[in-house]
Amino acid sequence: MVKYPMGHGPKKQIKLKRNKRINYGSRGMSLEERLNKSNEYYLSHNLAVIHKKPTPIQVVRVDYPRRSAARITEAYYRHASTTDYNGVYQGKYIDFEAKETKNKTSFPLSNLPEHQREHMLSCLDQGGIAFLIVSFSELDEIYLLPYQYIHQYINNNNKQSLTYDFIKENGYECPTGIFPMIDYLKALDEYLLENN
Amino acid sequence: MVKYPMGHGPKKQIKLKRNKRINYGSRGMSLEERLNKSNEYYLSHNLAVIHKKPTPIQVVRVDYPRRSAARITEAYYRHASTTDYNGVYQGKYIDFEAKETKNKTSFPLSNLPEHQREHMLSCLDQGGIAFLIVSFSELDEIYLLPYQYIHQYINNNNKQSLTYDFIKENGYECPTGIFPMIDYLKALDEYLLENN
Repeated sequence: MVKYPMGHGPKKQIKLKRNKRINYGSRGMSLEERLNKSNEYYLSHNLAVIHKKPTPIQVVRVDYPRRSAARITEAYYRHASTTDYNGVYQGKYIDFEAKETKNKTSFPLSNLPEHQREHMLSCLDQGGIAFLIVSFSELDEIYLLPYQYIHQYINNNNKQSLTYDFIKENGYECPTGIFPMIDYLKALDEYLLENN
Repeated sequence: MVKYPMGHGPKKQIKLKRNKRINYGSRGMSLEERLNKSNEYYLSHNLAVIHKKPTPIQVVRVDYPRRSAARITEAYYRHASTTDYNGVYQGKYIDFEAKETKNKTSFPLSNLPEHQREHMLSCLDQGGIAFLIVSFSELDEIYLLPYQYIHQYINNNNKQSLTYDFIKENGYECPTGIFPMIDYLKALDEYLLENN
């Protein structure tokens, strides 16, 4: 039984589990977990150094029961000012955000807030490579979509979402498997081959 | 008066203030604050896109008093698996760690744990630029030291610290001022000019 601190009833408390699901295959894993595994694969094979950034948290109160073990007792989630993933691949700066949707026909742009769009545009201006990884979970398809296409689409269309057809036409499908789970660098290679 | 939750005496609680010091000048600001301000300057002037990564925190328990406001009530600091700063500058991947020392004659290598060294080496292997920013606070001098020099030093010497003389000879001094507070990109330019 989970013991709750005094004054906090179980109704309001959620104990986070380290492993939410038993992973028999990629189907049971979140997009984030699969990308993290892929990044581990890339790193261990000297193919790229790409990491997910930690979730930004505003720490308000810390308890020091022992000198060695600081226990945070009050903190809040903050909004990320950048994208979730970045790193280096063959000398190139890589920056991306990854999103999953159950929608089968479009990707709602509300999933990509303004500050993340600005950040990706700044990365492009500075000569980096910025893209979105969109997972259509119901279709079991994952696309790498270079950010400049999204930028053009937003500028030319007054729409609230990217259509599936637009993503399929302009994006690069990421092969999925085991090693790595999502081979987005292969999709990126295709893009680089066409654009360099 | 600060109200403490039940069961926690004031002795064990530390309320973190957002601004610990009144900043009359750079002297009152931490190295991290000065670097963050410098990165803001670089970003707003389209010179580089470099951010500090959030501190990694393992969240164990979250309280949801309202649907909109998640309150973390138990969490712990984790060790960073990479360096604190990365980003893109003129198409180049930039990766660095920043450390301050009160020591006037050397920089203890214990400040640069093994996993950070490995990470910087991986970044170099992948064609990125990795360096250490060392601030000698008592001397009011800040150096950018390319990581490959540190790597060679560690391999060739069985020492626990980098000497000040070694850093001064192999590093590039960062001009300090107001806009930006620490102009480490100027130091980096010098290095790139000599090495490209």
